[in-house]
Amino acid sequence: MSEVQAYPSSGEPPCVVVGAGLAGSLMAIYMAQRGHSVEVFEARPDMRVRQVDGGRSINLALSTRGLTALAGVGLEEQVREMCIPMRGRMIHPVEGEPHLQPYGRADQFINSISRQGLNELLMNTAEAHERVRFHFEKPCVDVELDEGVAHCKSGERVAREASLLIGADGAYSAVRQRLQRSGRYNYEQAYLTHGYKELSIPAGPGGEFLMEKNALHIWPRHDFMLIALPNLDATFTVTLFMAFEGESSFDALKTPADVDAFFRREFPDAHALMPTLTDDFFENPTGSLVTIRCSPYHHGERVMILGDAAHAVVPFYGQGMNAAFEDCTVLNALLDRESDDFGRAIAAFSEERKADADAIGHLALYNYYEMRSAVASPYFVFRKKIERVLHRLFPTWWIPLYSMVTFSTIPYAEARARAARQDRMLTMGLIAAVVLLGLVMLALLVALSR
Amino acid sequence: MSEVQAYPSSGEPPCVVVGAGLAGSLMAIYMAQRGHSVEVFEARPDMRVRQVDGGRSINLALSTRGLTALAGVGLEEQVREMCIPMRGRMIHPVEGEPHLQPYGRADQFINSISRQGLNELLMNTAEAHERVRFHFEKPCVDVELDEGVAHCKSGERVAREASLLIGADGAYSAVRQRLQRSGRYNYEQAYLTHGYKELSIPAGPGGEFLMEKNALHIWPRHDFMLIALPNLDATFTVTLFMAFEGESSFDALKTPADVDAFFRREFPDAHALMPTLTDDFFENPTGSLVTIRCSPYHHGERVMILGDAAHAVVPFYGQGMNAAFEDCTVLNALLDRESDDFGRAIAAFSEERKADADAIGHLALYNYYEMRSAVASPYFVFRKKIERVLHRLFPTWWIPLYSMVTFSTIPYAEARARAARQDRMLTMGLIAAVVLLGLVMLALLVALSR
Repeated sequence: MSEVQAYPSSGEPPCVVVGAGLAGSLMAIYMAQRGHSVEVFEARPDMRVRQVDGGRSINLALSTRGLTALAGVGLEEQVREMCIPMRGRMIHPVEGEPHLQPYGRADQFINSISRQGLNELLMNTAEAHERVRFHFEKPCVDVELDEGVAHCKSGERVAREASLLIGADGAYSAVRQRLQRSGRYNYEQAYLTHGYKELSIPAGPGGEFLMEKNALHIWPRHDFMLIALPNLDATFTVTLFMAFEGESSFDALKTPADVDAFFRREFPDAHALMPTLTDDFFENPTGSLVTIRCSPYHHGERVMILGDAAHAVVPFYGQGMNAAFEDCTVLNALLDRESDDFGRAIAAFSEERKADADAIGHLALYNYYEMRSAVASPYFVFRKKIERVLHRLFPTWWIPLYSMVTFSTIPYAEARARAARQDRMLTMGLIAAVVLLGLVMLALLVALSR
Repeated sequence: MSEVQAYPSSGEPPCVVVGAGLAGSLMAIYMAQRGHSVEVFEARPDMRVRQVDGGRSINLALSTRGLTALAGVGLEEQVREMCIPMRGRMIHPVEGEPHLQPYGRADQFINSISRQGLNELLMNTAEAHERVRFHFEKPCVDVELDEGVAHCKSGERVAREASLLIGADGAYSAVRQRLQRSGRYNYEQAYLTHGYKELSIPAGPGGEFLMEKNALHIWPRHDFMLIALPNLDATFTVTLFMAFEGESSFDALKTPADVDAFFRREFPDAHALMPTLTDDFFENPTGSLVTIRCSPYHHGERVMILGDAAHAVVPFYGQGMNAAFEDCTVLNALLDRESDDFGRAIAAFSEERKADADAIGHLALYNYYEMRSAVASPYFVFRKKIERVLHRLFPTWWIPLYSMVTFSTIPYAEARARAARQDRMLTMGLIAAVVLLGLVMLALLVALSR
């Protein structure tokens, strides 16, 4: 046990951030730029010094919300240099050529970026502020919610009083676990019956990409799917999403021969590019996919959570990191509005952010169905085409859902509601068009038969 | 730390039940009657020796599912003697006389029973078996899920290996909390923004009931409500359900004068019977109302949860205890079917019971609206009357939802689905009747105008 450390230098205790991941490091920069001293406590070793493998995805899709949050601390240009633009989904059927479904207009794309590279940039930027200090291998073991004191431990125990304690410690957040035990706390953890496994496609012999570089590759197979995102070193990170149990499942693939036969049958073009497939398959863990919902995101005047700690989502909309970064933008704007009155700002954050987090949680779950199944349907492709035409004709009135989520900062809940309206209109329009066509043909027949 | 205690007397370790509440004590009797030795670990002191106040409701409504489970261990007759039949809802308007809405047919009623009296009967019955041992003041602090070992502690620590470990330790179950930390566990805790407070109406000067004895009294006031259940000593236990915060809320009632004025205005007839109102109000805690949903209810071959630990519901359908007791009936039937193969029985329990638990959770939430608001609506009363007529005409084809839940053992999920169909039919029927009536009147008008 240790005493709560007093802060002699100024009257205000520091802002304490639990978790030096993507959201925690970015929020540390925001708080430092607002003039607050910041202490960041991280459970793992410093990833810049020692290889840290958290079983988390290797690369991520960065889009407008994330870029907006990075621009807010002046990092957009630096980050853009680390990105590979992906202009659409490259759909790989079992037989025949792959074809591209664009994400949006010709000038719109999402960005493949290395989680580690981005995290290190954020940590370096935060640490360049003299107001920011990182403490590694100090897992948070308890939080005093009313007092805003974080207890972190590994060997010696540290108790740190915070003016604002921000839990940015991910889906298994220790800060949120403490909130869960407070009175009348609403909490849900819901797992998919599907999991994921990361695999890889190496660079070509001359260091070239072996598939189209500027696309997110998808092999939709209805009950399961494979995806691939490009890396700067010309490799692709490949992820298989599939049920844990059942006929086509991780459970059913017991031997290297099983895996080889499965990939050869289901993903023949990818199989041909994956020399280390069976080794990767049995060396890498099978990850689970969880949605976290809770409320409120704060307690009293001093404690709050953001990012995955508050609203972990499944990865199928590519919005987990983007939503977490947008939390930083939203919190920063509320701190502006409330003149850094932390109590008022974090209460407003809970109030304003919940509906948007719920919306992206639902959209991400739905998108798994869309990615592994709907993208292969001609009707789906046809509707997408009509939507693109409508968007070109009426750029502000009609925005496809994917564009609102990915290429705008329209609040997620509003985007979801607008898309539901658009969907109904499109369906009614298509029905009207079919009826009209039928009437015209009938009239023609009548005219011709005279 | 202690060693895991070995069981020298027989090859089979005992069945360990965590929690000596209603469900735990009943399940202990079932397991003993099946020939298993049973150890029950309870966190609190023995309520038969020392006053235990858990802030839980004082009396409960026992109905068919609960009685069926008690009949399964031969306790129905004894329990019936402890019951006060309640034939319907006695609705108290702000002004005017109260009126009775019957629950079902003239021979159908629910039963007001003392939680403590029933719990003591179950504990005494369990302890009368030489195979059953109770251990009090031994809270479960950890569970080894794969090994089926319960760690209970208070002073000295006890580790007990179980052939079957049953967590019947309520909404804040320690066994479930261990499950929550196992892989891919689905869990949700959802609180109402309303809470409750228990109050009382004393017996009359001659020991008589001061209101109708054989009814569940309700003062529906839309945003809040008061209810009262009779006790054997001619008192009534009164419960106020209301929002924690806002205009009409616990928060808004700060002084004895506030409480007195509120009751005098909203519940004048009850106010006149509550001499200790303001004392009770500020002495008794304000309880919260939680719904717990999780899955699965078991882990591996040896660990399971039941009752509130698996599916706590809000109290508005009077089904929390009845559902918990029905868990015992269902588990006992599965143990019959699987010849006491615990692994198979508890996996089947998870599989079969989840949909029913979800259904009663939803129905209980809806019923709060019905009790505090709908019962006061003439249209609601009119529909209830039509339903009673239909039920009398076609007793097996048309059963009102309340009757299916309360007076049958039709699985909750099936009852809910049947009621949804009946509801649609009734609405269509009423629309058809109105249209028909309109046509008849039109025809009459035409005939008369000739």
